[in-house]
Amino acid sequence: MSTFTFIDALVQAVGADAVQTGDAIPPRHHTDWSGTAPVAPLALVRPRSTEQVAAVLALCTAHRVPVVPQGGLTGLAGAAVPCAQGIALSLDRMHAIEAVDPLAGTLTCQAGATLQSVQEAAAAAGLQLGVDWGARGSAQIGGGIATNAGGNGVLQFGMLREQVLGLEVVLADGSVLPMLRPMLKNNTGYDLKHWFIGAEGTLGVVTRAVLRLRPAPAARATALVALPTFDAALALLSRLHARFPGAVSAYELMWRDFVAASLSWQQLREPFDAAHPFAALVDVGGSEEGALQSALEAVLGEAMEAGLALDAAIAQSHAQARALWKIREATAVLPEHMHPPINFDVSLPLADIGRFADACRAALTARWPAHHTVFFGHVGDGNLHLTTDASTVSGEEHAVEALVYEQVAAFHGSVSAEHGIGLHKKPYLAVSRTPAELAAMRAVKQALDPLNLMNPGKVFDL
Amino acid sequence: MSTFTFIDALVQAVGADAVQTGDAIPPRHHTDWSGTAPVAPLALVRPRSTEQVAAVLALCTAHRVPVVPQGGLTGLAGAAVPCAQGIALSLDRMHAIEAVDPLAGTLTCQAGATLQSVQEAAAAAGLQLGVDWGARGSAQIGGGIATNAGGNGVLQFGMLREQVLGLEVVLADGSVLPMLRPMLKNNTGYDLKHWFIGAEGTLGVVTRAVLRLRPAPAARATALVALPTFDAALALLSRLHARFPGAVSAYELMWRDFVAASLSWQQLREPFDAAHPFAALVDVGGSEEGALQSALEAVLGEAMEAGLALDAAIAQSHAQARALWKIREATAVLPEHMHPPINFDVSLPLADIGRFADACRAALTARWPAHHTVFFGHVGDGNLHLTTDASTVSGEEHAVEALVYEQVAAFHGSVSAEHGIGLHKKPYLAVSRTPAELAAMRAVKQALDPLNLMNPGKVFDL
Repeated sequence: MSTFTFIDALVQAVGADAVQTGDAIPPRHHTDWSGTAPVAPLALVRPRSTEQVAAVLALCTAHRVPVVPQGGLTGLAGAAVPCAQGIALSLDRMHAIEAVDPLAGTLTCQAGATLQSVQEAAAAAGLQLGVDWGARGSAQIGGGIATNAGGNGVLQFGMLREQVLGLEVVLADGSVLPMLRPMLKNNTGYDLKHWFIGAEGTLGVVTRAVLRLRPAPAARATALVALPTFDAALALLSRLHARFPGAVSAYELMWRDFVAASLSWQQLREPFDAAHPFAALVDVGGSEEGALQSALEAVLGEAMEAGLALDAAIAQSHAQARALWKIREATAVLPEHMHPPINFDVSLPLADIGRFADACRAALTARWPAHHTVFFGHVGDGNLHLTTDASTVSGEEHAVEALVYEQVAAFHGSVSAEHGIGLHKKPYLAVSRTPAELAAMRAVKQALDPLNLMNPGKVFDL
Repeated sequence: MSTFTFIDALVQAVGADAVQTGDAIPPRHHTDWSGTAPVAPLALVRPRSTEQVAAVLALCTAHRVPVVPQGGLTGLAGAAVPCAQGIALSLDRMHAIEAVDPLAGTLTCQAGATLQSVQEAAAAAGLQLGVDWGARGSAQIGGGIATNAGGNGVLQFGMLREQVLGLEVVLADGSVLPMLRPMLKNNTGYDLKHWFIGAEGTLGVVTRAVLRLRPAPAARATALVALPTFDAALALLSRLHARFPGAVSAYELMWRDFVAASLSWQQLREPFDAAHPFAALVDVGGSEEGALQSALEAVLGEAMEAGLALDAAIAQSHAQARALWKIREATAVLPEHMHPPINFDVSLPLADIGRFADACRAALTARWPAHHTVFFGHVGDGNLHLTTDASTVSGEEHAVEALVYEQVAAFHGSVSAEHGIGLHKKPYLAVSRTPAELAAMRAVKQALDPLNLMNPGKVFDL
């Protein structure tokens, strides 16, 4: 079967304008935000409907052509990087917000809708999506579901998985699984949608979703708290959970190295009179501005009396809240200041994060005394990010990775909290998964994609 | 291979006291709460550890003997009823609460721990498990996970699935999947645990879990609200969600027929001056008793002014709250008063529940003018229960089922919201699942249990 026949068949199925080849393919489709070397696919296919996706996949099966699904291409693990022998299947034309039901709190959309368009539609109905992450303007909801994206809000509402009530998926053979019932309770056989959430496109293509929306809180309070130790940070989080059950929407912990780098990079003033070992950014929601502010003041006051907190700044305005958040958002300028950054996205049992960070720093310092590494993270949900400036470790990226993942293994952590495995973390998947778990994954992959055409070579090799 | 050889091998693997046969098997292991006709298994096996479960399953695979896992035997769909050619595998000896981490909000236990023992351990740490259901004293957490149990609390915290952070499962061949990392964020390949949650023991045996605990609210307020229409009930729920984001823990709606039956069966007084079309039982959590009570009063006052509510009773004490809940808890005496009850556990898109109930009642009345059916449910999470007294429909149970499930299909609902499929709802699974979805389920079943030994004949036939 020649390539020409296959391309002709694609054109016949979805129209000439939906099939691009060679130089006609926009270069941005050759890779994603992971920094993986670009690869030109056999063709870029941009279907307009689930039916067209099904037709394309059926053709790929008939012609044994691999398929790499592409969303907003903002992934950080390389899962959307094309392969040269296969097509890139972009969902970007399928971006409709199809329905919002304010009473039931549900939103139905096509997979190509951007995170931001979903958030805006939710806000227009007085509701919110439970998760949010930086790439909201480009990231597509289908890609977010395929990678089980996290970001901000996970502490309160869980990962994107927990926001998915229904899912439509097309399998490699072109069959459509219309699992779109919007009910919270639905125990009718295996809950298939969970197989595809976080599978990074290796089991099927997400084409449509029913998302759960949450009430948007009427009031919000933000504080930056200085803390003496990691254990004090955990104890304060526990007090916040007890005082604001289900309403703590952010607890972002920053080690001093991160705060210092952020202040210097962004030319911000020191937020407290002294440089403290840790700073936590706290967001809580509630129904009344005044009462919420007082309650937060009270909890932080008690924490200071108990020696858990050293100092605290409570934002008195939206502008002050933005200013506090700016310290945490140094991640946006991180690539300019590290040459280049070696990023980690790990998660650990909550109680161990402090000791893990200490162990990592000690091990890095032992080998590269001049290394520059910053530690920060969502922490409230177990997620720690650390970033090392490659120029301070003689560019030995792989050695740094090996060292950090060795610590992750020692602390029974996860090598990927929210970014996924894709291509980049494949070598380290076995740190977090046993051979029996990997064998079970392969068995299911084989069952649902027997020809190994769906995003082959991502997550694990067969 | 003779039965004797197999039983001998079992005894060798787990000890003589852990293997019972014939009349030595306590009759309660012959069926569950579904009322299915009792079946004596080949043997009842009661392992003490995951290693013993693995040894038993490896033997069953070697001897091609089916396995029916048994928890507390409180299931309502027949999933734990033994088969005559297989063993019943009871988890009842594996009931340890192994660890509670109050700071991280996690609890680790073996599968045989009762729901109540988990709840008590959580309470001792000042926390709560997000879900609760009536059979808490007998139901085991492993059975709850295998059937993705729901019950009370789903509105606020989701089904039991959403409380599971980690899971240990033994596959048919005896291999152990130790997916026990407690982190909220963990995107390392397929999230295998979700395959087993709600699979009703057809893919493997749950042996251990890490559960997420939630802060227990310091204050709670309860009200019974009289409502004119179903749409008014939905509108009130929406106002409650907006005023108490994430803190509405119950919204139990009762149609008048249910309230009338409950008052009569339990000899309770009419809660309001008049008989109203609907009554909703509302529970909200918060941090201060007084403030919470006032806020609830305010929301209900506004709802009455807006014509959404007709009357309301707010409990002023724990005793008054119990008295209001007693109306809803008539379900406990329902079997005494219906001869016998024909139970339904369906879910529907929230906005359609009122019309669905009307359509069901009209269709039942058209065929059985004297039928007695009561409508009630969690509703806030889309779950409606209806129960018909079989003696008022000439005992035509199957005709009633066919009629109700026809309406479920027409309204795109689910034939099982929380009880599962087991044996009882197998004939109706196709109402809620397409042939492509069923084919995908069978493919995965085949991949993980190629000899079809795990709870064969439950959920679907191969």
